[in-house]
Amino acid sequence: MKTRITDLFSIDFPVIAGGMVWCSGWRLASEVSRCGGLGLIGAGSMSPELLEEHIEKCRKATDKPFGVNIPLMNVNSAEHINVVIKHRVPVVVTSAGNPATHTERLKQAGCKVVHVVANCKFALKAQSAGCDAVVAEGFEAGGHNGKEETSTLVLVRQVADAVSIPVIAAGGIASGEQLAAVMALGAEGVQMGSAFAVCKESSAHPAFKQAVFASKEGDTKLFMRKLSPTRLLKGEFFDLIAEAEARGASSEELLSIIGTGRTKKGMFDGDLSMGELEIGQVASLIEREKTVEEIFCELKSGFAKAQQRLQNLSI
Amino acid sequence: MKTRITDLFSIDFPVIAGGMVWCSGWRLASEVSRCGGLGLIGAGSMSPELLEEHIEKCRKATDKPFGVNIPLMNVNSAEHINVVIKHRVPVVVTSAGNPATHTERLKQAGCKVVHVVANCKFALKAQSAGCDAVVAEGFEAGGHNGKEETSTLVLVRQVADAVSIPVIAAGGIASGEQLAAVMALGAEGVQMGSAFAVCKESSAHPAFKQAVFASKEGDTKLFMRKLSPTRLLKGEFFDLIAEAEARGASSEELLSIIGTGRTKKGMFDGDLSMGELEIGQVASLIEREKTVEEIFCELKSGFAKAQQRLQNLSI
Repeated sequence: MKTRITDLFSIDFPVIAGGMVWCSGWRLASEVSRCGGLGLIGAGSMSPELLEEHIEKCRKATDKPFGVNIPLMNVNSAEHINVVIKHRVPVVVTSAGNPATHTERLKQAGCKVVHVVANCKFALKAQSAGCDAVVAEGFEAGGHNGKEETSTLVLVRQVADAVSIPVIAAGGIASGEQLAAVMALGAEGVQMGSAFAVCKESSAHPAFKQAVFASKEGDTKLFMRKLSPTRLLKGEFFDLIAEAEARGASSEELLSIIGTGRTKKGMFDGDLSMGELEIGQVASLIEREKTVEEIFCELKSGFAKAQQRLQNLSI
Repeated sequence: MKTRITDLFSIDFPVIAGGMVWCSGWRLASEVSRCGGLGLIGAGSMSPELLEEHIEKCRKATDKPFGVNIPLMNVNSAEHINVVIKHRVPVVVTSAGNPATHTERLKQAGCKVVHVVANCKFALKAQSAGCDAVVAEGFEAGGHNGKEETSTLVLVRQVADAVSIPVIAAGGIASGEQLAAVMALGAEGVQMGSAFAVCKESSAHPAFKQAVFASKEGDTKLFMRKLSPTRLLKGEFFDLIAEAEARGASSEELLSIIGTGRTKKGMFDGDLSMGELEIGQVASLIEREKTVEEIFCELKSGFAKAQQRLQNLSI
């Protein structure tokens, strides 16, 4: 499948595995790249030293292109940028911050740069900053999310109209039919998080994966709208915050309840009651642990089915 | 374009115009049906007598099939049901209530019955109750909305898998590309609200239409999550409720602030500050007043473009 995204990254299939904290190590990233997509290492939960180690292991595991996701609000982000430049990582996906800060330096070092956005304003900003593409991530996505709450179906259409650089759709995509749907909207690739977060090669805790497989529709929710909207699996920790929000708790109180280390606790250590379980709305569509290879097979057959379905409709 | 939905309703193009309070009178409904879609009269803002008048006028304006939307929580809903049976309205779309209550009687009277759902549980319930199809309406939709906040991209995929009756997608659809996207997911038709709510033939107030044309991304928001989630254009009334919700106001206090007659005030009388302005997230994609005929033309050309885009992608 050829789009501007497959050309840009020199990959066969325009599917990027999001660089998710506690899930996206070298094992997942290299396997996604080996299967023809683009695997990302998630720097958000790594020290600069650990990131270097994962980049080196990923290179040993595959000679295919791969990338690193760097959340810019992370305390280590400037050092992470130095690491990816030093190691000449082919693709860098930046998120949660200003795309103008590092893009020029990364591009000078030969990296392709992609920025994650949740609205047209930031998509245009990323384009002006020299980014090669944007990820337009909708309300459905797990983890941190935009304040506008624009869904992928609306957002991708808008962003594809607003910018001239290629658009990668994210949020709410775990099947080939959903891949086809966002390509129909004008996306030229997709970034999938949830499906890869709970696949065999993800480093997430088995208990977290099982909780995702068991989840039903409505079991994830966007919360912490006051501080920083985040989509999680519901549970005890979720209830604690929701209760505080409902009685009008201040930002300070909310922050103190949240504390630190919640995502590690939930997603890596498997503490389902007091950990922060970041996952997207498609969680309810994912029913068992698959390998990356299986996910790619299913994406392709679902896409072909959807393509056929549309071809049969004439106007 | 032929699907089980075009067969079911005997229409040419599987686009249904939602039966929206204060917008969907006989003028809009008959014009949508004349153009090859299915127009709905919105009973929610009508007395039984007024509904009869609109049904009669709609029949005079077109000999094509049309329908009536009846929100079941409405105080007049039982009488509305009697009216549509008396007038042998071809299609009845019920929403906001139990699909088992009236479906059998409506079907015995020869009506096709469709129920609006926001999750698989109710989709299966509607199927068991004998409904001919379901509208799967996502988080993006204007007005009343599901508690699960499932977006159209996720919901339609799930509902299409769960039921065997045809699925009509709703929420976040105003362009031909979005139509193609939801058909790729497995929908066999769409229900569009916002685009028709502000078109030339809608009976909404011009000031409301202008506010929608001027709106940008993030300008609609789901609110009143505690009482009954509803998507509105932001404004003074929205702020009033949002402020009360943020300080943890009780349901009783919220209800007393809301009072009655807010949607009429906003959408029919054009009071933009104190009226309730129900519109979907696609509002930001709609920039000027179009006729129903223009909307259909644009839908068809956008759909053809998206279809071509997908055809060009080979696996």
